[in-house]
Amino acid sequence: MKILVLNCRIYSIEYEVFEMPKETELCRGILDSIGFDAAILTHITGDKTEKIVQPVLDHQKGLELIMTTISNPKYGCIKSKDEISAIGHRVVHGGWTFTSSVVVDENVKKEIYKDFELAPMHNPYNLKGIETAEILFPGKKNVAVFDTAFHQTMPEVAFRYALPSRLYHEYKIRRYGFHGTFHQYLSERTAQLLKKAKATLISFYLGAGSSVCAISDGKSIDTSMGFTPLEGLVMTSRPGDMDVGIINYLLRSGWTLSELENCLNKESGTYGISGISSEMKEVVEKSIKGDGNAKLAVDIFVYRARKYLGAYYFVLGGEIDAVSFTGRIGKNSPLIREKILTGLEQFGIKIDLKRNEKTIGVEGEISATDSKVKIFVLTRNEKLLIARETMELVKK
Amino acid sequence: MKILVLNCRIYSIEYEVFEMPKETELCRGILDSIGFDAAILTHITGDKTEKIVQPVLDHQKGLELIMTTISNPKYGCIKSKDEISAIGHRVVHGGWTFTSSVVVDENVKKEIYKDFELAPMHNPYNLKGIETAEILFPGKKNVAVFDTAFHQTMPEVAFRYALPSRLYHEYKIRRYGFHGTFHQYLSERTAQLLKKAKATLISFYLGAGSSVCAISDGKSIDTSMGFTPLEGLVMTSRPGDMDVGIINYLLRSGWTLSELENCLNKESGTYGISGISSEMKEVVEKSIKGDGNAKLAVDIFVYRARKYLGAYYFVLGGEIDAVSFTGRIGKNSPLIREKILTGLEQFGIKIDLKRNEKTIGVEGEISATDSKVKIFVLTRNEKLLIARETMELVKK
Repeated sequence: MKILVLNCRIYSIEYEVFEMPKETELCRGILDSIGFDAAILTHITGDKTEKIVQPVLDHQKGLELIMTTISNPKYGCIKSKDEISAIGHRVVHGGWTFTSSVVVDENVKKEIYKDFELAPMHNPYNLKGIETAEILFPGKKNVAVFDTAFHQTMPEVAFRYALPSRLYHEYKIRRYGFHGTFHQYLSERTAQLLKKAKATLISFYLGAGSSVCAISDGKSIDTSMGFTPLEGLVMTSRPGDMDVGIINYLLRSGWTLSELENCLNKESGTYGISGISSEMKEVVEKSIKGDGNAKLAVDIFVYRARKYLGAYYFVLGGEIDAVSFTGRIGKNSPLIREKILTGLEQFGIKIDLKRNEKTIGVEGEISATDSKVKIFVLTRNEKLLIARETMELVKK
Repeated sequence: MKILVLNCRIYSIEYEVFEMPKETELCRGILDSIGFDAAILTHITGDKTEKIVQPVLDHQKGLELIMTTISNPKYGCIKSKDEISAIGHRVVHGGWTFTSSVVVDENVKKEIYKDFELAPMHNPYNLKGIETAEILFPGKKNVAVFDTAFHQTMPEVAFRYALPSRLYHEYKIRRYGFHGTFHQYLSERTAQLLKKAKATLISFYLGAGSSVCAISDGKSIDTSMGFTPLEGLVMTSRPGDMDVGIINYLLRSGWTLSELENCLNKESGTYGISGISSEMKEVVEKSIKGDGNAKLAVDIFVYRARKYLGAYYFVLGGEIDAVSFTGRIGKNSPLIREKILTGLEQFGIKIDLKRNEKTIGVEGEISATDSKVKIFVLTRNEKLLIARETMELVKK
């Protein structure tokens, strides 16, 4: 069964085709600058990369171009789009409604539409992708996989802010959490590796955006991202937790809301502290070479991750099976993992430095043999996780 | 030695006279509505309360009225203002400069002036109080006791936000922390009770405003309030930690900054969730009687306190001597203390429920005999702490 996975954004479409259940990637790519003078399609099959530059009017024309490319006899990976059995879509916000992935019908589309205001930069384009796929693949099933769904098991004590309750009821302001697909995957794969049905763990997704999740018996009970993806851990260009009084102060100092949003989304985090790059790898490298600002950025990143680890360790009553990492930084940076976990032996968390050092971009256990809490590095990408969800729902 | 303690606010002056070093309260009171048609002075000596209602033009006239009242032969506590040896002032913001209390000179006043922008609702009136006292008590020493000073030992990793570094250097945006006098007192008194020179502890000030502090060997190394007193624990009418994205969202939804600030300062916290009262006592009582919203407010208050406890426990490497409480809620609510601490036996924190139940508004140890970590309830009020600081500095 061939499954097409789509992540439609405001000006771009990311895609990947999988052979399921083998989980083989057949091809992938990204179409960028939709609606601009020249859109760029970068298409990868195996070790071959094809670049196509041409104007692309809208998402429908974009998806048509992608399908033509995918089925191109020279650099494509399928013969015809009819081979696609189902399409899996990343949808950022599932609001209050969606607690798991769903096969799309008219009602599902209506609900995604209702959540436009909660994710105005994402949900409209996610829905656009679904509607376009319905046109291009008549009769095929579309599955929506939500970033927020996994966290819908959080108790009210964790998801409510200490704000007037009308902000919750009227404005739907609450902690939603994001990266749900990743945390669910970390939860399920950790349980598999432990040979348990369900695991209790603290899961770290450390990428450009970062989040951490307290998972009890396979269920998310708290997570660091909140109403928006600005809250929580320090990220590569976002601040994570900060005093809201700072916002009021800067606005009163003459900043515009747009300047502020730009600062919070693009100029903060480890990039803002270090002044070096929004690529964490570069910041880590400079920190190793002794750059003071880079070192501070890394140290703050790590310090805040440890604070969450402690908070969630208490929330989970000190009884956890594992700490699991994924995401670009989580998979590839032994230094960051080491700094987060060193010195926690008394909590049953003991990292094996040699194993850790060797585990870069591959799955592996990095805990010491006598560590009560297992530590895992896990590596699956989000699109495969969406393909899995899609296959499961289509099979039903 | 008689010491006058002043807390000058925008429209009010709180005062208290102590006989030191005996620490006896001679009289106290509050002058409210300065600058309005009718100011109200409520003056208390022993069990007698005197109320005076009359227009009071400004802080100087206000302090003159207070001194006339204090030295009134019928309801005063001293014969003449000449008996006052020194004046201790609460100053909210000590900025980057003040790491401890200081005897006021021209330079100190200049520095307090520089920090007006960091605490525009407090520092100008704190300084006003100092200048007025200089006029009324010529030749007597004034001591400034800062809310922020105790936290100036925090390492950069704890006090810096993940924001562009120019916001730190140019705008002085960092974590300052508040309630420093209280946390210092909790630290010192805890060490005394443990018969140690310095203690390592987690200290909770739970009052109308609430904060928690990680104290290592007598030094503050992290605290929950940040650039402003909005951050951190849930408070009676302030939200504590929340996603800054909510601010952007509400502003984009048409809220004005003033509406927002009003909401965050006065309509949030346990009041906002419960809809009942900004008096925590009432919320707790309603929660016991089964009110769902009150119960949720109490549970969120407690849950967030536990998260900080876990975070700071990790920050302190799991080696703490004590957890200490003060503040109106911390001193008077066994239920809140019990809920925060129950089920933490494996971390060496074991509350004695009977001791806890009996310790209301008085100093006491509430840990079980076999608890590795001691738990204390401490009760001194802020004005006495300011009087102590003032006496120490005047004696030098």
